[in-house]
Amino acid sequence: MTGRIYGIGLGPGDPDLMSVKAHRLLSLARHVAYFRKQGRAGRARTMVNGLLPEAAQEVAMEYPVTTEVPVSDPRYNEMLSGFYSDCTTRLTDITARGEDVVVLCEGDPFFYGSFMHLYERLKDNTAVEVVPGITGMSAAWTASGAPITWGDDVLTVLMGTLSEADLTRHMGDSDALVIMKVGRNFKKICDVLKVSGKYDAAWLVEYAAMDGQTVQRLSDVSPDHKAPYFSIILVHGQGRRP
Amino acid sequence: MTGRIYGIGLGPGDPDLMSVKAHRLLSLARHVAYFRKQGRAGRARTMVNGLLPEAAQEVAMEYPVTTEVPVSDPRYNEMLSGFYSDCTTRLTDITARGEDVVVLCEGDPFFYGSFMHLYERLKDNTAVEVVPGITGMSAAWTASGAPITWGDDVLTVLMGTLSEADLTRHMGDSDALVIMKVGRNFKKICDVLKVSGKYDAAWLVEYAAMDGQTVQRLSDVSPDHKAPYFSIILVHGQGRRP
Repeated sequence: MTGRIYGIGLGPGDPDLMSVKAHRLLSLARHVAYFRKQGRAGRARTMVNGLLPEAAQEVAMEYPVTTEVPVSDPRYNEMLSGFYSDCTTRLTDITARGEDVVVLCEGDPFFYGSFMHLYERLKDNTAVEVVPGITGMSAAWTASGAPITWGDDVLTVLMGTLSEADLTRHMGDSDALVIMKVGRNFKKICDVLKVSGKYDAAWLVEYAAMDGQTVQRLSDVSPDHKAPYFSIILVHGQGRRP
Repeated sequence: MTGRIYGIGLGPGDPDLMSVKAHRLLSLARHVAYFRKQGRAGRARTMVNGLLPEAAQEVAMEYPVTTEVPVSDPRYNEMLSGFYSDCTTRLTDITARGEDVVVLCEGDPFFYGSFMHLYERLKDNTAVEVVPGITGMSAAWTASGAPITWGDDVLTVLMGTLSEADLTRHMGDSDALVIMKVGRNFKKICDVLKVSGKYDAAWLVEYAAMDGQTVQRLSDVSPDHKAPYFSIILVHGQGRRP
């Protein structure tokens, strides 16, 4: 009997927004794995403080690289590929002993994020179960105090890392927008929203459902603002409402 | 002291996928309100079977119309507008007595859905708190066994009720697709996916995270298939993966 790997969505940050199922799996976990940046506690791990059994064994999976090597550099892919293979081996060494592993995933495991790279390497030979979670974008539009989509609104989810041309084209043809990976792309995103005529309707949500949550009209924020990684820019849809 | 209204996302169907917070609010609820079709138990209400306190008072809000009058008919908007105003009065009659009401919302309250029509009428005069939930689309891509978006993939969420022209344009310019409100729009959606060259990559997920969940390649399904309301069509992104 080999063990099973659970990729569990922890939701956007507030442990109260974790699913009942994720909460139960955590409270029974013998092995808990999570990604983190070297030298950091890891945000996923921090989210479950106080929720793990004392005897739980931890598997910290530390990225060999985050932003030091650009994504376009072939070494980036090589380093990460080797890293995910190593992680896979660490997890399957545990399941081979007949024990289960819970892998902590911020947000929803199958919506961007890192777990899917393990999933692709595991799924053909190991029992893997994925537990969906509340996405960071749901927390962001909830924090904004306004529905993101109404009636037949089209919603487009864009990464701030896209080119100006791609961002402009997509922004112009959507009712509602969610823009993630804002961070160092903040100024570019603001510029493109201005070109698209959506700047004045846009909102910046930082640390949604986490400590330090802020919600601001984008036009009230300086273009030189240093947006943290956990920033989401929203444009709400304006569709049919009786 | 007036009461508070909680719009709580119940998630996609499986009560185990409800948030810890939604679960707690339910278990303490004195008044529970939910939408339903006339003569039906109501799906949101059914989802919380066994989770409500025995003494909880129920407020069933029955749609005066669902599909009998077309959305384009002005009477549709009029009837629904009056209905939502009546519901608002029923809820504020309770909060005026200093008692809280929990409103059950399938999925996430601010992502399509009906609660937002109450929210807009309540928010300026009543304390309203929204609890986000796992969306039906998260349950659908989890059920499909493959991540929906990778790296910088663009995700577009489309309603099957859109015109062929709108659907075609958006489908052609997105990496990943989620198509909701499939039901009677099934054949139209299939035709447009064929034109967009995405038909062979599309999946049909019915009743995600509910009893009777099915996952099929769209090309394995007859074009005459009667897709239920709770159907979602997915095309997975194929973005960067180390």
